[in-house]
Amino acid sequence: MIPASAKIGDSVVIEDGVILGENVTIGHHCVLLAGTKLGDNVTVGHHCVLGVRPGGNATMRTTGVSNLTLTIGSGTRIGQLVSLYTGTVIGENSFVADHASIRENVVIGPGTVIGRAAIVELNTTIGASCTIQTNAYVTGDTTIEDHVFIGPCVSMSNDKYMGAQPYSLAGPTIRSGAKIGNNATLLPGVVIGKLAIVGAGSVVTRDVPDQTVVVGVPAALLDPS
Amino acid sequence: MIPASAKIGDSVVIEDGVILGENVTIGHHCVLLAGTKLGDNVTVGHHCVLGVRPGGNATMRTTGVSNLTLTIGSGTRIGQLVSLYTGTVIGENSFVADHASIRENVVIGPGTVIGRAAIVELNTTIGASCTIQTNAYVTGDTTIEDHVFIGPCVSMSNDKYMGAQPYSLAGPTIRSGAKIGNNATLLPGVVIGKLAIVGAGSVVTRDVPDQTVVVGVPAALLDPS
Amino acid sequence: MIPASAKIGDSVVIEDGVILGENVTIGHHCVLLAGTKLGDNVTVGHHCVLGVRPGGNATMRTTGVSNLTLTIGSGTRIGQLVSLYTGTVIGENSFVADHASIRENVVIGPGTVIGRAAIVELNTTIGASCTIQTNAYVTGDTTIEDHVFIGPCVSMSNDKYMGAQPYSLAGPTIRSGAKIGNNATLLPGVVIGKLAIVGAGSVVTRDVPDQTVVVGVPAALLDPS
Repeated sequence: MIPASAKIGDSVVIEDGVILGENVTIGHHCVLLAGTKLGDNVTVGHHCVLGVRPGGNATMRTTGVSNLTLTIGSGTRIGQLVSLYTGTVIGENSFVADHASIRENVVIGPGTVIGRAAIVELNTTIGASCTIQTNAYVTGDTTIEDHVFIGPCVSMSNDKYMGAQPYSLAGPTIRSGAKIGNNATLLPGVVIGKLAIVGAGSVVTRDVPDQTVVVGVPAALLDPS
Repeated sequence: MIPASAKIGDSVVIEDGVILGENVTIGHHCVLLAGTKLGDNVTVGHHCVLGVRPGGNATMRTTGVSNLTLTIGSGTRIGQLVSLYTGTVIGENSFVADHASIRENVVIGPGTVIGRAAIVELNTTIGASCTIQTNAYVTGDTTIEDHVFIGPCVSMSNDKYMGAQPYSLAGPTIRSGAKIGNNATLLPGVVIGKLAIVGAGSVVTRDVPDQTVVVGVPAALLDPS
Repeated sequence: MIPASAKIGDSVVIEDGVILGENVTIGHHCVLLAGTKLGDNVTVGHHCVLGVRPGGNATMRTTGVSNLTLTIGSGTRIGQLVSLYTGTVIGENSFVADHASIRENVVIGPGTVIGRAAIVELNTTIGASCTIQTNAYVTGDTTIEDHVFIGPCVSMSNDKYMGAQPYSLAGPTIRSGAKIGNNATLLPGVVIGKLAIVGAGSVVTRDVPDQTVVVGVPAALLDPS
């Protein structure tokens, strides 16, 4: 089950049903739950929990996850104190920094960075070569294409009715190459166009056309004067 | 001390003076410190620290906690990598998500959700059936009534003088059924009225009347036009 | 190696090359990696990882850290679930709260508080007797002088080009005694003057003179009327 090439830290828990590639490194005190599948050369820091199964209390939606596997692509590196759920695929040569959390039904492309303490909620797709900066919050039901930059502390929402109608959820859609400044706020369902730029601290309440720059509260096209 | 019905993970530390109800589940590597009291059917994820005693350095206020118990109501579920303090009561059938932290002298009602990486500071009361979304920050000395929705990344403050007069602290008061949009900013001592709505990204500098909607910086009544 | 005066929790990992002062307390399940150096009377909570070495994926900058020591001054207290990197010095009698993370090449002065879940990125200097509040984000390449107050959820950025030109980075400079309100946004390279005050939720796009008060989006001098 555990290849001879694996380097496993102290007090690591590896449940039955975990699959490890060649040359993986697992930090001290990690917990790898059933369904976790690591590619070759994956490195996991200390105190991580991998393969968490979804659950909540009676008021939270159930996601009907049928895929109880967490797949981490070859060469990807996971930091310390990270939690990752089943039903999720993280591409090759990506990086998930310390204290980050990624939930179920998420697909992350290769070469993408999920920053320190960043959170990716359920049912979300993130493309290749993206940077999701430190402490950014990617809400559920979000689509992020390739080469997108999400600045530190960016906030998103997928719930127009704030709990009153919990089953009509839509996160933002962020097109290829867009850049979102730090601590910007994105409302549910907004579309950020290709190569668009959202200024730091802006509040985006409507769609942003391709290759434009918006700033302010609410965000408006930047006056070039 | 540990009921036969309990399911306890590997390398769990349970100090003397911990009380466990029937059918509890404790994840791997959890640390349950003296004073922790779990009701029946409580589930705790992996790598949690329960029953932390308050402390800081010389510049931080002491809270004079005399209640050194952490009480978690029956049926409540705790995620992974969570820290919970003594002097605090969490109601039945609540949910505290991964990476969350709840400090001392906090009371949380039944059926409430404390989101992923959300933080609840000391001397705060949260009612029943509330949703405190992911990454929200509930400052100290705050009152939140029942059925309140706090969106993701909402920020609050209790310190009008920002450290200059540390002992005159007052957090917001948020009345029943109010909803706060994501990444909104609440200033110290503001009162958000019953069923009021605060738009995403707003900065609330004064009280919000019952059943009104405010948006913007500073937040003002929404122009219905 | 481990002084007789040390109190060490269960399942603690202490690598060769760790240096402990007198009367240190190390919580359960902590991981102390080679290069960690604790002064006398240091207290470390549970589930911490100390002495992490920098690393990332191919798209992230390498910092060329030659100093592979993490030094924590006498009397400093570290919370639970904290991650601290090598190449960093934390002064005496400081406090690093639960879930916080501090990266490489950081210097923190004595008597400073790093709040719960606060993050300090690489190549940053923080002075003496500062308060970095809960969930604040101190970006890389930042200078914070003495007696500064950074409110909860404050966000900073050091990357004017958002990933397009990753090697021209400059964080804010925050002069002695300045106070930044909660959830304020600071753009790359801005200078906040001595004893200046930035209002909660403001977006600071240009330098703030000494002893002035700015508010709003973008932040402007407060109209005294």
